[in-house]
Amino acid sequence: MITDITSIDNAPLTGECLEKLDAYWRAANYLSVGQLYLCDNPLLEEPLKIEHLKKMQLGHWGTTPGQNFIYTHLNRIINRYDLNMLYISGPGHGGPAVAAGTYLEGTYSEVYPEVSQDRAGMKNLFKRFSFPGGVSSHASPQTPGSMHEGGELGYSLSHAFGAVLDNPDLIAACVVGDGEAETGPLATAWHSNKFLNPLTDGAVLPILHLNGYKISNPTVLARIPHIELEQLFHGYGYFPLFVEGSDPAIMHQAMAAALEQAVHFLKQIKYNAIEHPGQERPKWPMIILNSPKGWTGPKVVDGKQIEGTFRSHQIPLTVSESSPESHLQMLESWMKSYRPGELFDTNGCLKKEIAEIAPKGNRRMGANAHTNGGLLLRELILPDFQRYAFNVNCPGIMGEGDVHVTGRFLRDVTLLNPQNFRVFGPDETVSNKLEAIFETTSRQWNADININDEYLAPKGRVMEMLSEHQCEGWLEGYLLTGRHGLFNCYEAFIHIVDSMFNQHAKWLKMTREIPWRRKIASLNILLTSTVWRQDHNGFTHQDPGFIDHVINKKSEIVRVYLPPDSNCLLSVMAHCLGSKHYVNVMVAGKHPSPQWLSMDEAVVHCSRGIGVWDWASNDQDCDPDIVMACCGDVPTLETLAAVSILREHFPDLKIRVVNVVDLLKLERQSSHPHGLNDHDFDALFTVDKPVIFAFHGYPWLIHRLTYNRTNNNNIHVRGYKEEGTITTSFDMTVLNEMDRFHLVMDVIDRLPHLGSKGLYLKQNLMDKLVEHKQYINMNGEDMPEIKNWRWKA
Amino acid sequence: MITDITSIDNAPLTGECLEKLDAYWRAANYLSVGQLYLCDNPLLEEPLKIEHLKKMQLGHWGTTPGQNFIYTHLNRIINRYDLNMLYISGPGHGGPAVAAGTYLEGTYSEVYPEVSQDRAGMKNLFKRFSFPGGVSSHASPQTPGSMHEGGELGYSLSHAFGAVLDNPDLIAACVVGDGEAETGPLATAWHSNKFLNPLTDGAVLPILHLNGYKISNPTVLARIPHIELEQLFHGYGYFPLFVEGSDPAIMHQAMAAALEQAVHFLKQIKYNAIEHPGQERPKWPMIILNSPKGWTGPKVVDGKQIEGTFRSHQIPLTVSESSPESHLQMLESWMKSYRPGELFDTNGCLKKEIAEIAPKGNRRMGANAHTNGGLLLRELILPDFQRYAFNVNCPGIMGEGDVHVTGRFLRDVTLLNPQNFRVFGPDETVSNKLEAIFETTSRQWNADININDEYLAPKGRVMEMLSEHQCEGWLEGYLLTGRHGLFNCYEAFIHIVDSMFNQHAKWLKMTREIPWRRKIASLNILLTSTVWRQDHNGFTHQDPGFIDHVINKKSEIVRVYLPPDSNCLLSVMAHCLGSKHYVNVMVAGKHPSPQWLSMDEAVVHCSRGIGVWDWASNDQDCDPDIVMACCGDVPTLETLAAVSILREHFPDLKIRVVNVVDLLKLERQSSHPHGLNDHDFDALFTVDKPVIFAFHGYPWLIHRLTYNRTNNNNIHVRGYKEEGTITTSFDMTVLNEMDRFHLVMDVIDRLPHLGSKGLYLKQNLMDKLVEHKQYINMNGEDMPEIKNWRWKA
Repeated sequence: MITDITSIDNAPLTGECLEKLDAYWRAANYLSVGQLYLCDNPLLEEPLKIEHLKKMQLGHWGTTPGQNFIYTHLNRIINRYDLNMLYISGPGHGGPAVAAGTYLEGTYSEVYPEVSQDRAGMKNLFKRFSFPGGVSSHASPQTPGSMHEGGELGYSLSHAFGAVLDNPDLIAACVVGDGEAETGPLATAWHSNKFLNPLTDGAVLPILHLNGYKISNPTVLARIPHIELEQLFHGYGYFPLFVEGSDPAIMHQAMAAALEQAVHFLKQIKYNAIEHPGQERPKWPMIILNSPKGWTGPKVVDGKQIEGTFRSHQIPLTVSESSPESHLQMLESWMKSYRPGELFDTNGCLKKEIAEIAPKGNRRMGANAHTNGGLLLRELILPDFQRYAFNVNCPGIMGEGDVHVTGRFLRDVTLLNPQNFRVFGPDETVSNKLEAIFETTSRQWNADININDEYLAPKGRVMEMLSEHQCEGWLEGYLLTGRHGLFNCYEAFIHIVDSMFNQHAKWLKMTREIPWRRKIASLNILLTSTVWRQDHNGFTHQDPGFIDHVINKKSEIVRVYLPPDSNCLLSVMAHCLGSKHYVNVMVAGKHPSPQWLSMDEAVVHCSRGIGVWDWASNDQDCDPDIVMACCGDVPTLETLAAVSILREHFPDLKIRVVNVVDLLKLERQSSHPHGLNDHDFDALFTVDKPVIFAFHGYPWLIHRLTYNRTNNNNIHVRGYKEEGTITTSFDMTVLNEMDRFHLVMDVIDRLPHLGSKGLYLKQNLMDKLVEHKQYINMNGEDMPEIKNWRWKA
Repeated sequence: MITDITSIDNAPLTGECLEKLDAYWRAANYLSVGQLYLCDNPLLEEPLKIEHLKKMQLGHWGTTPGQNFIYTHLNRIINRYDLNMLYISGPGHGGPAVAAGTYLEGTYSEVYPEVSQDRAGMKNLFKRFSFPGGVSSHASPQTPGSMHEGGELGYSLSHAFGAVLDNPDLIAACVVGDGEAETGPLATAWHSNKFLNPLTDGAVLPILHLNGYKISNPTVLARIPHIELEQLFHGYGYFPLFVEGSDPAIMHQAMAAALEQAVHFLKQIKYNAIEHPGQERPKWPMIILNSPKGWTGPKVVDGKQIEGTFRSHQIPLTVSESSPESHLQMLESWMKSYRPGELFDTNGCLKKEIAEIAPKGNRRMGANAHTNGGLLLRELILPDFQRYAFNVNCPGIMGEGDVHVTGRFLRDVTLLNPQNFRVFGPDETVSNKLEAIFETTSRQWNADININDEYLAPKGRVMEMLSEHQCEGWLEGYLLTGRHGLFNCYEAFIHIVDSMFNQHAKWLKMTREIPWRRKIASLNILLTSTVWRQDHNGFTHQDPGFIDHVINKKSEIVRVYLPPDSNCLLSVMAHCLGSKHYVNVMVAGKHPSPQWLSMDEAVVHCSRGIGVWDWASNDQDCDPDIVMACCGDVPTLETLAAVSILREHFPDLKIRVVNVVDLLKLERQSSHPHGLNDHDFDALFTVDKPVIFAFHGYPWLIHRLTYNRTNNNNIHVRGYKEEGTITTSFDMTVLNEMDRFHLVMDVIDRLPHLGSKGLYLKQNLMDKLVEHKQYINMNGEDMPEIKNWRWKA
């Protein structure tokens, strides 16, 4: 026991300290209002005039003073206990606050020298805010100390927990907006405390900011009885510390006391974890700060209450040429209420005695290296993936599940990187056939463990919760703080995090353009349990459209791979894990399926990303009559089966088989860095021959990628067209007309010179499809000739 | 006060009643096991042989006996109190349970006569389960009494609350899986009780099924202390009633008592709402059923504990030719443990005295008409939308925000349909400029109300919570039970519900193919606050890709509209609100912008969906030199501005302006029912002239839609290419090269005959773009010539 929590003073601030804190807070508030309104006269050295104001007044005041209050108090507690703390701004729009906080501590000026700590710099700080091409109204990549974009809501707490995994000394102070708290992802993220290991991970200090209102509604959590709020957070497994009121003097003491308590709690938890290992999950502290929205801002404007209401959400007071003259005076009085003359010297620099509140050097939250994770990034130690090769002595031999093979590689990646690599998944790591990972580690779990559980331990490298949001959010937090990881997910349900992917891809795009930001490890997503294999899940589990979603984002950021077999997946996985600042989407099967390439061939094929499979083609010494292209494991199988039928019936037909691993090879070079130039594309797909393309996903995606290629009018694509049910993989291809028989018929339709022999075969194949339907309806499984088909050269 | 809750007997069942309930439950369990394993010998009339078994044993046992238990007890309580109750199966895979439950009560056989209540029917019931083309392993559209697809998890509770809105007599019994409870959407859906009005809405009875495990992990809620669980649900505002154990006799009494208590609670709440209106929000009852996963199934198989562990999630016992012989015997003993001879007569029909447990007629949960909402659907009463027209006496006059105008129409739709139309939105109805609706109604809100709140009332037609998941889920529940509604949302954040949209679109597709399912009202989504107008939100709020996502789903289901002005939006909105069984996505602007069409013109234009704007074109008596196409409000503005520049500089140039409202007109007729035939497409877009297409969304979407049109190689598309920041709408078009100047340059590039005059203009426009950048960097707003530009014919 370190100390008795009840012994903590509930008014820990001396008069002088309270004065200083309040001055620091006022300075932050002053700078925040300045950002919203001013483009000149930053120190109000002359009477405020309309021409000192921005013409477009945009931004968000409501959450800002509360966040300034929090940031100021965190500064104090960091200094007092020498804490390694970062700040996450969950509420949508605390932009002015994080800019003000980092400006006051000096970190803002260090990355933006033009925003210096003087009059000229302050003017720049004000002007660039919510100005075309400037700084947005929320914490963003542009803000030093930010590892979390405040644009879309709901992910702050998942990011915070991801950040502190394997960072035992780190505290993520995470401000959760009460609006944000209504989102689903945030509502479940509170449960992250059942996973955190107090010995090997850091701590999250959630600060629920009960600001009372969203844009125009009250918030749910601000309108339930105090007792329910308390019960809710006790139920979530926290110990809530309340700081409630509006009188600054009282609130300063209360907030300081709450932070003292929280830090003592955290130290106690750490102490217990070391001294009494194996104890039950601790109750983590959290703070509930209930303060008025738009605190210290205009109380009443034009007869309407502003402070403490939704009306203070954005610009609480409009000041323009057309607004009442009194508004200009109100603004000036408001800004002067912070007594800038007491805060800044005549050059506009924060006075030294007030500046002492800020921590020093890297203890400043804006300078915490974890928020610019690339600074801390260590290269992943990758074993030689070729050692895990599946032995393919001839094409077509049966594999053991492509993901399954890669599981052994991932097991060893986990083993070799015990501090900075984790695997995330929504209860599907075993279902997705990655169970080899559990030979070397467990799922991290800090709730109760029972005798019949498997692979659970307080410390482990696998994070599983039945929430794709949590998996994605944790992983993003982990990556953003300079580590590596993999998210494995059922293909259909990755859409649950479409919007999170959007925000992360935008973050990567923006940070790529900011010189002081360092590159981080790629977000690696392995999609399996795919559309074509949903034996007992059926239609609801069939959606290959995440790829479509992903490639709308910037081409510098997104990569999509569909390895056709185990050795290719190994090669792709190793490549992706070693890459930086991308989102890599890998789509692969988990069920045993035919294998095509030896490891050597796979390495060559994957490094090219696309290529002719010579061993399956017979156009080596001439132009092909037809190109059979395929992308994805099931389409590859059906294509090769179709090729074997064609070669049996038309031995003279010249067929070229092209396989695509790296989907974006199909784009033009000008559209994507991986894109083939037209010459190479034409060399593969010809300029005038029919191309039958079997694709894993929605067929029109291939058209969208190839619409401007020479031969585009001859490309005929088969893929998933939203037909499905509970059935076999082969029957799924039949339902979507991507099966071998349809592919052959597509060829016949496009090659009239096959004549009556072609038509005869087509009729045969149509009969075969009828026979298939009858057989499967009777037996519930595929005909032996389908099940037992193997490629013969 | 109706009764004292404490007076309720904690063992309300007589011995006979308990016996019957248990028999009914055993029958359901027997039928469930049969579905997993048998294809013959359904009554075990002869010794079980391997050939009686399915070759592919697929399905989920774990949750099933618990759900059978719940369904059986709900039957009893419905009968006892003549309740109007429906059943929602939240856990992923309760398929066998809902099939068994509805089969036993007779509703299954009513919709599937071949699955009769006798030996032959039972055999069919067993065989079709998880069989190719058969019935999926979760509650689905195929299941009578289901209004909720159990495929993807997380939405059961939102659906339940949506279902009971405006249905004051309805109780939605909603089984929430403890795995499902970990998802974000479910975690926030508990808060729906802050919105429900006990006087005018029905009740949701959540039954949290603490089954202990997911696929292979324990569940979080099953591994926290009892006190935390209790606090959590008290904190969520419920009164949890616990039913815990595994001994059936004890559990039957406990469950019966809990349901008695719950019903008394609900009656008390109703009574209070009527007798003491204006009272504070009630504490709603809920049940927490803690029973072993795979209850009554195999205890131990091959030395491993099955019952009560994750190993019972799917098939708990593998029985095949290659499994140990003892497994077959275990299966037979297991099935016989339910004593089928006591349950079914020799024909396989449930014995009459047991069948009495089931409610009668429409009180049977499988027959509740609310679960086949089309049966209850009343046409929406729509005022004449033309009355709300914005007066456009000449093209280009300034509007007042397209969404804003439509707000007045929606206000009156709300007024005319006070029982069966609602508007849903994540705190954005005012921000999205639909505030006119609040002239006639309020936001429904049953948490505390303060003096400074606006438009809040216990009863209202607008549902707002800061959770897109909740808005979508509530609305789906409302629609599925036969009502109408609209979801308004920021365009970028609609991606949050991508996956929910998927599931709903799949539901619509499947129910369309099931003869006994009736069509329901369309899911109408109005997207505004679009990519082009994010003045202070910037890059994070810019994503027009929901359209791309939507059109991957079945063409019979999805519709996408981008009305260019107010009158067109009115016409589109009226059309969508009146439609059935679609997902209609409408994208429109909320800011004042130029108006183009009078109401009469808008009606004609929107009914065609696409068309030449003659008044903007000058190719009336000849072929055009160039086609300028546009889709979306900002692209239309930029296109017309480009046309005016072109016509000023090249009066002889023949320009055709084509505007697209109904995006899927661009698809081929064979791909979408709205698609133009090739002749009509060619007539609009020519077969060989350059087409410059300005599009609201990602440009490649247009290529994906038009890749197989005659003139596809000449279509050049401009749109959002993921470049953005905080800036003006015009500057956004410049960043993405969709502005008027780029469009003109595109024309010049494609028409070499414009010669040196063209090149000179191009240089001028490039200078203009530089000037624009300088001006906006200096002034933070657009040049006057941009701001004040107006169309002149």
